[in-house]
Amino acid sequence: MANIESFTFSSAYLKNFTREVFRYYGVSEQDAELASDILAMSDLRGIESHGVARLQTYVGLLKAGRINPKPNIKIIRQKPSTATVDGDNGLGLVVGPKANEIAMEKAEQVGSGWVGVCHTNHFGIAGYYPLQALKRDMIGWALTNTTKIVTPLWGMERMLGTNPIAIAFPALEEPPIVIDMATSVAAFGKVEIAKREQKPIPTGWGIDSKGNDTQIADALIEGGALLPLGTNGTLGAHKGYALSSMVDILSAVLSGANWGPFTPPFTIQQTMPERSVGKGIGHFFGAMQIDGFIETDEFKRQMDDWIRTFRKTKAVPGTPGPLIPGDPERAAEAIRSVSGIPLIKPVVDELLLISKVTAVPFDLNEAK
Amino acid sequence: MANIESFTFSSAYLKNFTREVFRYYGVSEQDAELASDILAMSDLRGIESHGVARLQTYVGLLKAGRINPKPNIKIIRQKPSTATVDGDNGLGLVVGPKANEIAMEKAEQVGSGWVGVCHTNHFGIAGYYPLQALKRDMIGWALTNTTKIVTPLWGMERMLGTNPIAIAFPALEEPPIVIDMATSVAAFGKVEIAKREQKPIPTGWGIDSKGNDTQIADALIEGGALLPLGTNGTLGAHKGYALSSMVDILSAVLSGANWGPFTPPFTIQQTMPERSVGKGIGHFFGAMQIDGFIETDEFKRQMDDWIRTFRKTKAVPGTPGPLIPGDPERAAEAIRSVSGIPLIKPVVDELLLISKVTAVPFDLNEAK
Repeated sequence: MANIESFTFSSAYLKNFTREVFRYYGVSEQDAELASDILAMSDLRGIESHGVARLQTYVGLLKAGRINPKPNIKIIRQKPSTATVDGDNGLGLVVGPKANEIAMEKAEQVGSGWVGVCHTNHFGIAGYYPLQALKRDMIGWALTNTTKIVTPLWGMERMLGTNPIAIAFPALEEPPIVIDMATSVAAFGKVEIAKREQKPIPTGWGIDSKGNDTQIADALIEGGALLPLGTNGTLGAHKGYALSSMVDILSAVLSGANWGPFTPPFTIQQTMPERSVGKGIGHFFGAMQIDGFIETDEFKRQMDDWIRTFRKTKAVPGTPGPLIPGDPERAAEAIRSVSGIPLIKPVVDELLLISKVTAVPFDLNEAK
Repeated sequence: MANIESFTFSSAYLKNFTREVFRYYGVSEQDAELASDILAMSDLRGIESHGVARLQTYVGLLKAGRINPKPNIKIIRQKPSTATVDGDNGLGLVVGPKANEIAMEKAEQVGSGWVGVCHTNHFGIAGYYPLQALKRDMIGWALTNTTKIVTPLWGMERMLGTNPIAIAFPALEEPPIVIDMATSVAAFGKVEIAKREQKPIPTGWGIDSKGNDTQIADALIEGGALLPLGTNGTLGAHKGYALSSMVDILSAVLSGANWGPFTPPFTIQQTMPERSVGKGIGHFFGAMQIDGFIETDEFKRQMDDWIRTFRKTKAVPGTPGPLIPGDPERAAEAIRSVSGIPLIKPVVDELLLISKVTAVPFDLNEAK
């Protein structure tokens, strides 16, 4: 995106701004801190689509009364290792961390904890949640369903979201393995970037409204659909579709949220689905204590060995060779925590507008 | 495979035969019943590569003393919702069902149960295990690592197995959703079938020993590798690699089994890996009680709705339209439970040879 004007701010400056904006819209200090922490981590880890670039969307929903700034988050059903949480239509950025916390507390009690969440909203990057579990020497999981944009294999209709799967494993001397992946062939954010840059999208990412493969971002966005991981029948798109279905059912059917094509949209511009089959969207969190299976240090030593072994894989000439899941985000964080977060002008303009409305200062002179 | 001579036997006849063969090699009556049940279900569900076609391999390992016919299967570590089981080098077809049973018992106690298994061997079709959980109104999971055949993205070396993920969800009036998928772009069995039929494999399935894409089954088999789901960087092969890594770590690192390229091979012909980093191969089972999250009947009614909604997805012209995960296996079972299991001549010849050695009768006159 070198051709688009950009401004670079420190992560701390952006985090302060987003926290105060959430507070302006009625979110408590503690909850605003949580929410701004997730957006900040997203920008730090280079997942720009899920950072302050989304603040405008959260603000729009809060302003429209579509998100409850002061939710009464409740466990509505539980057993020693499982629970369902009703997020009372709060920010997913607030409901998510609290439900994840319940999963980790259950893991401390009985070895593992599994928490479904209904009546919630988009929760930021899925990878944030298992990173919390790592701090307690646990393996963490996070899944969520999202607004429809993906078609099942052999379909030509949006039925599922990009429904991510995140899971993280700690190591001893090596950095942890952090998996955070959409179950679609590509993230929708990449299609939006192609549109903005007026570039074609790769064949295999999506179809137009007639069900034909398309390389035109607009054709996908206007009534087309993303394809599941696997892209077509020969290359296993039934598997990407199955994984996306698994995420949808665990997150939404199991918790009593809206599933599949009935999952509410993330922006106020999008129309609401024709049917409501539950409450809000759904998440699913898991936490497992490693020492419920094996000595924690033994596990971490083996993970060091695993990581070093895989780094030595013979590389295809002309490629960097195999990475370890989490490497790209870690590389981005190493750079951005020092040099700051680059924001393109359209995002900066949105933040300036929010600043004007809320009177929370946002100063272009803070840009590096 | 219409060009290859085949013989059709009833599932019950083949199951009896395999049970008695396992007994001949020292497996107890009860364990032989379990093991033959899994092979029979595989053939019934149309997954021929994992049925009686594999009996010869199990027999070879039992004869060579590489599998313990009378394992002392033990829980070596546990918490209320987690455990690690040492399979004492038994048949995976015996160790697997017993470890899965422990997961389900823990789920009955505390809502969910998660069991890692080390010191075990190949456990048959992964889909068998969650089908057992369905009988108790649970959501079941089964993962296993397997012998190396898959390269990570940007690698040109076998580092991971086809490492399947299976999970099943019950419905009320509709049949259940049963996901059972390799995390590679295609199953290795399909490459072997292409070799046997001297047909090309699709571009995107695998590479030769030089790291180049190949359509030649032999070039993949002789020192090449399968690619992960996603097939290349543009279409998300880092995701298939991440999923395969997740299965490897949960199954083997967490239980103390051999992981990645050190996972022992399934046949006596293959050489043992240069290093041993644990005991045997590894499995990972999970079971969750639905009513730890939501009323079981409410969940099942929503699943009926989910399934009917997805069946109505607008179909791409010229395709059958979206299937529900588990449909193809269910269709095969409906036919094969009536008309029998077709076996190609090379498999029949193997069974005749086993019959000769063991004196367990196998009569071609039983073929329909």
